[in-house]
Amino acid sequence: MTSAAAAALRVHGGRVDLAAQAYPDAPQPWIDLSTGINPIAYPIPQLPPQAFARLPLAAELDDLCAAAADAYGLPQGAVMLPTPGSEIAIRLAPRVLTDARGAQVGLLVPTYSSHAAAWRAAGAQVHELSALPDVDAALDALVIVNPNNPDGRAVDANALLAFAARWCAAGKRLVVDEAFADVRPELSLLRGPALPRGVVVLRSVGKFFGLAGVRLGFVAVNADDAPPWRDLLGDWAASGPACAIATRALRDAAWITAMRQRLAADRRRLDATLAPTGLTECGGTDLFGLYEDRDGRDLVDAFARAGVLIRGFTHSHNRYRFGLPGDEAAWRRLEQVCATQKTTTAASAAAV
Amino acid sequence: MTSAAAAALRVHGGRVDLAAQAYPDAPQPWIDLSTGINPIAYPIPQLPPQAFARLPLAAELDDLCAAAADAYGLPQGAVMLPTPGSEIAIRLAPRVLTDARGAQVGLLVPTYSSHAAAWRAAGAQVHELSALPDVDAALDALVIVNPNNPDGRAVDANALLAFAARWCAAGKRLVVDEAFADVRPELSLLRGPALPRGVVVLRSVGKFFGLAGVRLGFVAVNADDAPPWRDLLGDWAASGPACAIATRALRDAAWITAMRQRLAADRRRLDATLAPTGLTECGGTDLFGLYEDRDGRDLVDAFARAGVLIRGFTHSHNRYRFGLPGDEAAWRRLEQVCATQKTTTAASAAAV
Repeated sequence: MTSAAAAALRVHGGRVDLAAQAYPDAPQPWIDLSTGINPIAYPIPQLPPQAFARLPLAAELDDLCAAAADAYGLPQGAVMLPTPGSEIAIRLAPRVLTDARGAQVGLLVPTYSSHAAAWRAAGAQVHELSALPDVDAALDALVIVNPNNPDGRAVDANALLAFAARWCAAGKRLVVDEAFADVRPELSLLRGPALPRGVVVLRSVGKFFGLAGVRLGFVAVNADDAPPWRDLLGDWAASGPACAIATRALRDAAWITAMRQRLAADRRRLDATLAPTGLTECGGTDLFGLYEDRDGRDLVDAFARAGVLIRGFTHSHNRYRFGLPGDEAAWRRLEQVCATQKTTTAASAAAV
Repeated sequence: MTSAAAAALRVHGGRVDLAAQAYPDAPQPWIDLSTGINPIAYPIPQLPPQAFARLPLAAELDDLCAAAADAYGLPQGAVMLPTPGSEIAIRLAPRVLTDARGAQVGLLVPTYSSHAAAWRAAGAQVHELSALPDVDAALDALVIVNPNNPDGRAVDANALLAFAARWCAAGKRLVVDEAFADVRPELSLLRGPALPRGVVVLRSVGKFFGLAGVRLGFVAVNADDAPPWRDLLGDWAASGPACAIATRALRDAAWITAMRQRLAADRRRLDATLAPTGLTECGGTDLFGLYEDRDGRDLVDAFARAGVLIRGFTHSHNRYRFGLPGDEAAWRRLEQVCATQKTTTAASAAAV
């Protein structure tokens, strides 16, 4: 029963309500470490009732996009378009970029599962790749998450831009999902001099700013590629609250700088906290770590029994992604669980 | 200059910031009557920070959809899916329903312009119709807004359901945009016994509840038609604030009943207020009225000079849509402007 529940929890992060149903005896409150979302959310300003009542004005949407361009960068000749979450941009990309039915798309794996799901749903054939393909590969499009979720694999921005220029010159399309690039800004194609036609860069406000509930992301494309995105998204893709909150958050350089430092420190603390479990760090970003178990345990189940939801994967049963605890109480709960998860391997290693 | 500005204002409603730029000498504050959005918004409850920070839980999204099904109705075997505004559902419909490129779609006109824009952008050919077509018409899909914006044209629910059954049995698709059906609930297909495969019903939370900034709508379809919508919308199409606010609003039967009565009364007051202008009422719903001018005036320009934004149309230059003023100050401003817009026609009519 609980191992079936643990299997269900491996499909997606953030399902803390399902976890609580599956493990009714687990201590409360649940600590959700199953996502890569910053647990320290940008503070929500007082929102005027008008933000909920009327459509965002054209000037407000322009200001939001300008704030995003300031924060992320935006190459000459490129445009920034808001989306109601980056998830829907992932879902729309196959339809915008290709005659998706029958398209051949390469995907650098393992990675966030919605990309493959979106392309398959659109009728494309997905090819799982472990590295950038040759420019003459028999593919119509390529998807890369940079830095990657869950393993943090990173492709240097200059190398990727050079690849993108050749790839797209061959008439192919490139999706670069930079959902976690806020903590690796040097990787972003948006800091580069130009965005070739055929490249789509996706950004997420939810992860770094801890505002997943706001549902706001951005698509950045060469201006010549913008019309089909505008056609699909319409004029009011960002909500009034999203517009007001994110415009402020993206311009809050002091918060952004301090948060990058804090997340880096918290990530180091996460590694130290998990050390007693015998898990081996094998990647991640400053928003989450990926760890490998060499002891055959079902750690989704083990941590869930203690009221801590972590992320397991169907594709690699011995790997686990841990997000960051949001406060001292959560850190202490995690430390306590880790203390109970000492392995014989770890014990013997310690005994050596 | 101002007449060019007035022309630009005929393209879309809600552009009060553009109006203010075009008419800098107009009295403040601007009264925006250019949309069909209820100016008396549902009161925003206190929102917990979690609504912004984390993704809506599966249970919260289920509850939102249940509240919508309770409020709107939901036929046996149909499902309700949230969308980030009904606009994006309009934009996605051509891609979900047909191999849109080359599709032939009928559209009952005049109506909300995004439908035609969405189908044309998807490569379909749009045929403007003035009545329901024959079932054997050479069309792949049909779009009807019921009740219609801007003229309030209504198709009886039983008649439309009978048509839908035959239309869809012939392998054709039907989009029924019920964005304004909150004030004509008896027209909704969602009150019927079943939703045939091939029918998509669109609902909007923004109009009746006055919450356009929240960006929330619903798609209701036969359960067998749901997978491609789920594929495109993903798991988190509704924001946390939208989820929290709309679940409460849709369940607030007392507010809904009282608001229907108030809007009906306000609509009668709108007709009375406009009487001195000599405009002839020619349709609408309880959220807006459509009026015809027989005197060749540019009333978008005339009202904008007085700081009142109304909706003109590029397709019928002598028709104007007026939304409802939201408070007594706005009603008085409107009365004052109307008093200055007396026509010779109206004056002679009064003299008879």
